[in-house]
Amino acid sequence: MNTQAPIGVFDSGFGGLTVMKEIMRQLPGENLIYFGDTARVPYGTKSKGTVLKYSRQIVHFLMTKEVKAIVVACNTASALALEEIKQEIEIPIIGVVEPGAKMAAETTETKTIGIIGTDSTIKSGIYTSYLRQLDPEITVVSRACPLFVPLVEEGLLEDRITDDVIERYLHELKDYGIDSLILGCTHYPLIRNAIRRYMGPDVHLVNPAYETAKSLKAMLKEQDLINRSGNPAGYQYYVSDGVDSFISFASDVLPCHVEKAEIVDIESY
Amino acid sequence: MNTQAPIGVFDSGFGGLTVMKEIMRQLPGENLIYFGDTARVPYGTKSKGTVLKYSRQIVHFLMTKEVKAIVVACNTASALALEEIKQEIEIPIIGVVEPGAKMAAETTETKTIGIIGTDSTIKSGIYTSYLRQLDPEITVVSRACPLFVPLVEEGLLEDRITDDVIERYLHELKDYGIDSLILGCTHYPLIRNAIRRYMGPDVHLVNPAYETAKSLKAMLKEQDLINRSGNPAGYQYYVSDGVDSFISFASDVLPCHVEKAEIVDIESY
Repeated sequence: MNTQAPIGVFDSGFGGLTVMKEIMRQLPGENLIYFGDTARVPYGTKSKGTVLKYSRQIVHFLMTKEVKAIVVACNTASALALEEIKQEIEIPIIGVVEPGAKMAAETTETKTIGIIGTDSTIKSGIYTSYLRQLDPEITVVSRACPLFVPLVEEGLLEDRITDDVIERYLHELKDYGIDSLILGCTHYPLIRNAIRRYMGPDVHLVNPAYETAKSLKAMLKEQDLINRSGNPAGYQYYVSDGVDSFISFASDVLPCHVEKAEIVDIESY
Repeated sequence: MNTQAPIGVFDSGFGGLTVMKEIMRQLPGENLIYFGDTARVPYGTKSKGTVLKYSRQIVHFLMTKEVKAIVVACNTASALALEEIKQEIEIPIIGVVEPGAKMAAETTETKTIGIIGTDSTIKSGIYTSYLRQLDPEITVVSRACPLFVPLVEEGLLEDRITDDVIERYLHELKDYGIDSLILGCTHYPLIRNAIRRYMGPDVHLVNPAYETAKSLKAMLKEQDLINRSGNPAGYQYYVSDGVDSFISFASDVLPCHVEKAEIVDIESY
């Protein structure tokens, strides 16, 4: 395997850029290719069959770019498609669910963990099942929060309406006495300050983006796939729709300026 | 043309069922086929190119069912794709924009009309351009309301959070003194009571679903396409994802029980 080959990172849209950012920070020598399925976003309301089909198309596209590894930077696709795709390809692939669950299981003292995400992620029960595998004594309280993504996309990061919605969604989790809360959707870290204000300082917020980059690094080391060429890392961006809004959002989120993104006819893969 | 052939009605998802319902009511003798693109919903954030591509696939699918006419029951697709598709097919096709705009132009006294819709519908400027064609003296005040669809889909039809969002989006339109407000997205009639409460009794709310069914009837009469067989009307439902949630939603919205819906691999059309 060519260690200078890029790593493919994909998401249903913009959200996975929070994962991309962590990978850039923790693995500054790696070439990266990002694909955002902005034409078919969101995945969080779709069925397992559809998310699996879309994820397979994206993996096929990334394989044409000869990536050495793939990161599923989308909680819904990690929850609904990762296990199947892992069986179908030769290169290593990791998602955001397992690293997030592992960190939460390690930090909880009360053994009561909260998990929030899209409808499909929560319905899949995958975080609960990982957490139970890690420690059967853990109690998991989960809640779908479908309004968080639209609120983030409307830019209402610090807003009374967002605070009201947070209270509506999270009051049960607060009453339950969780001490660790997994932000199980890539958009949620963008309202982490408002969530922290409501949940209080004793609840540890787990950001799977950070944990995923850490796991990716460990995995690349273990499989001797780290790029040690010393060449400056190159980044490429592909989307299925809306290049201009992607470039503007990406340049806000990432520590570097994004100059161009290319449209991919993803349905043909 | 076989007058007993069905009429095709399509939308990006569930919302177009409010149009379907009006057609059932105003044209009880017509056979209808509904297609909801539930796998790729929403259209309101997508580019013109993508919405046109998706709409063409759906029109091709409906043509295989030998429909005699097509209703684009989606404001975004009506705004971004109708003009092109009209040139490409032989059968009559109507959208929801023109009928809604016409009613608003007829009812306004102050000649100041408000229009609310998705990002893409508002950005397209199509309501404004229709209204100006109808009466160049009309002033149009438009506003995208991206949170309304997720709020409706969360079931928050009567809720303080929805009232707050309505105030946030509509206060400028209210200050502007509009006397007619076009509900330019098929989901919005479901929160019309809350919108009416905020806007007050002097603002006429225009529901394009109702106006579209009326226009469809007039068009079928004019082209001698009314089904006069006297046979009971038949209804068929197709979606691109999530049959169960579609059936449950459709049975709530429509005046009849929906027994089944079929999955269509719409990307292959």
